[in-house]
Amino acid sequence: MSIITLTTDFGMGSPYVAAMKGVILTINPAATVVDITHAVRPQDIRHGAVVLDDVAEQFPPGTIHVAVIDPGVGTARAIVYARIGRQRYVAPDNGLLSRLARRTAPSQLIRIENRDWFRQPVSSTFHGRDIMAPVAARLSLGRDPLQLGPPIERLTDLAWPEVQIRPDRIVGTVLQIDSFGNLITNITAEMLAGRPTDNRACIVANIYETWGIYHSYGEQPDGMLIALIGSNGRLELSVVGDNAAERLGIQIGEPVAVAWETL
Amino acid sequence: MSIITLTTDFGMGSPYVAAMKGVILTINPAATVVDITHAVRPQDIRHGAVVLDDVAEQFPPGTIHVAVIDPGVGTARAIVYARIGRQRYVAPDNGLLSRLARRTAPSQLIRIENRDWFRQPVSSTFHGRDIMAPVAARLSLGRDPLQLGPPIERLTDLAWPEVQIRPDRIVGTVLQIDSFGNLITNITAEMLAGRPTDNRACIVANIYETWGIYHSYGEQPDGMLIALIGSNGRLELSVVGDNAAERLGIQIGEPVAVAWETL
Amino acid sequence: MSIITLTTDFGMGSPYVAAMKGVILTINPAATVVDITHAVRPQDIRHGAVVLDDVAEQFPPGTIHVAVIDPGVGTARAIVYARIGRQRYVAPDNGLLSRLARRTAPSQLIRIENRDWFRQPVSSTFHGRDIMAPVAARLSLGRDPLQLGPPIERLTDLAWPEVQIRPDRIVGTVLQIDSFGNLITNITAEMLAGRPTDNRACIVANIYETWGIYHSYGEQPDGMLIALIGSNGRLELSVVGDNAAERLGIQIGEPVAVAWETL
Repeated sequence: MSIITLTTDFGMGSPYVAAMKGVILTINPAATVVDITHAVRPQDIRHGAVVLDDVAEQFPPGTIHVAVIDPGVGTARAIVYARIGRQRYVAPDNGLLSRLARRTAPSQLIRIENRDWFRQPVSSTFHGRDIMAPVAARLSLGRDPLQLGPPIERLTDLAWPEVQIRPDRIVGTVLQIDSFGNLITNITAEMLAGRPTDNRACIVANIYETWGIYHSYGEQPDGMLIALIGSNGRLELSVVGDNAAERLGIQIGEPVAVAWETL
Repeated sequence: MSIITLTTDFGMGSPYVAAMKGVILTINPAATVVDITHAVRPQDIRHGAVVLDDVAEQFPPGTIHVAVIDPGVGTARAIVYARIGRQRYVAPDNGLLSRLARRTAPSQLIRIENRDWFRQPVSSTFHGRDIMAPVAARLSLGRDPLQLGPPIERLTDLAWPEVQIRPDRIVGTVLQIDSFGNLITNITAEMLAGRPTDNRACIVANIYETWGIYHSYGEQPDGMLIALIGSNGRLELSVVGDNAAERLGIQIGEPVAVAWETL
Repeated sequence: MSIITLTTDFGMGSPYVAAMKGVILTINPAATVVDITHAVRPQDIRHGAVVLDDVAEQFPPGTIHVAVIDPGVGTARAIVYARIGRQRYVAPDNGLLSRLARRTAPSQLIRIENRDWFRQPVSSTFHGRDIMAPVAARLSLGRDPLQLGPPIERLTDLAWPEVQIRPDRIVGTVLQIDSFGNLITNITAEMLAGRPTDNRACIVANIYETWGIYHSYGEQPDGMLIALIGSNGRLELSVVGDNAAERLGIQIGEPVAVAWETL
């Protein structure tokens, strides 16, 4: 089994993705290449980091995840191999792996330097094709990552909005908007544990508010704003049968609060 | 051979699709997963039903088609396994399979209830990942669908626009618009059999009309409105070298008539 | 190993693509089918030709590339099998392969006529599904292309904008715009060899100009217009961290010049 996933900001339908697949299949024709997404907003490392954090662990242990959101391509930024939990990653060291690494400390971190693993010649603008794809393909053949370069101590971290947790309120932010327009926050089910989730909980975003945290969209009629715990264990705001992001005019990064009146 | 297809309304590039693929490959790393489309209009069950009806039978016998257009996720709607013709389906029982089942009576229908087949825990909002993907993956390993739950008698049906067939005219509707803007109707080649298809046939949509039913776009010059029998055996309206839906301002659901003057 | 790639103008998410995959997998369930892109602009043969020229050779030797940008479907245009370099192609003979064939003379050219290889019945509007997909699938099983039809002498050629090379300037055109908005020209690194690429080189497009040809985006700060040699060996214009095509309002086909002042 050798599964390689691709996560990029190249755009759906970009031939650059196909070029990476060609390089991978030339080295390992038996590899199974799976697209996670190529619709990461251009050069938005945080967006890529959230996607990887949500999806990578759904894959079989040992899967190699290649992530190319790489605004620093051609500069001194490193490219790294990381083992985090039971998954493996090949990515620029620009924070793309920072959400994953905050949750689970990497068990192996290597700076990728060994040019024998690269496609030749290496362009200055497309390390996804010339470095990351061939490295992933060779790893999928069972080659030892210790040959890739020297171990490193830590990954580049990114600042992430913190959730404020107080006795009477929890204040987070919109981390992601999915294709249905649901507003997915950084407030997790764990943070809400032990608090009332019935009508005593008031969820506020922009000028809108709703009471109670539900389990599924079908618990309210079409057109209603509801809060629920989504499939990744995070609080999200939805408009039943509609696009909450459009209806509410709310963007990624805007605050969402859960407040409980003093009882 | 174990082919699993995916048809959803998650949007092209949605990481939700990748999550389903990860779940499938974790259970059956040898599965071949093929995207039918993820561009079904959000929550538009009829759109999904038309796509499945057009494409599923192109796949090898025994293929498992997973379809997730599921506005009722988390409510009491059932999830079903269906064998229809030589294909197999896993989908919510909300009408998604109703066009297929009208054409060929299902030979096996089972309500999916056996939680041993599911991913744990089962979220309330993403049964595609937590129920349908793992069920399809286990079926692809050869497990017996009879273990999934009780047999059921019939699928939920949806009302579909009927074609009116009269001696002097056939009146149908636009069922689908393809990516070239061709207007694909529910009038089939069979319905037209025995009728004149030369210039005596007048095809009318909105305020536009054209005479004769052609075989290929190249039979008329660029910019001409033509009617022809498309690759799925249905009457379609096209503007040669252009986008008919945009040029004519016609939407899905609008009527299209073929009329013959009394001779 | 049997890899088949698909390049079409059907649009990302088109079920027509899935229909082709179903036909291929029915004939050869072990085929690895890879999407190059389905986002070629509708009926834009030149766009498809540039994509194939950029990407096809990244794939393993013997890969079969199926390309369906086919405005003449159903007319007398031929469908051809071509061996060019170490890759194989199945495409309408309308110029789609003309960039590849200008660079490397085809070693085998056959007009596809043998209906035994086709899906039956053959529609008049979807030869991708009914002719090209089954032909590619059967070729991937090792069948002899000589059975497909008679050899032909040459492919249909397309006129391509020529690059003007003069002592004091090289004038080319924008050939492609990638998903980041980079403007990729038909001026190659070879054409620039031996010329100064430092600040003596002035690159001009529309009313904009920039000096020097760089190696990577990171060599200039955000917002700067820069010229560099891209990953396919062609001169491109970029705005660091931004979308050059939008910022500069420049389209495919517009001229780009590199000029050197008389020293």
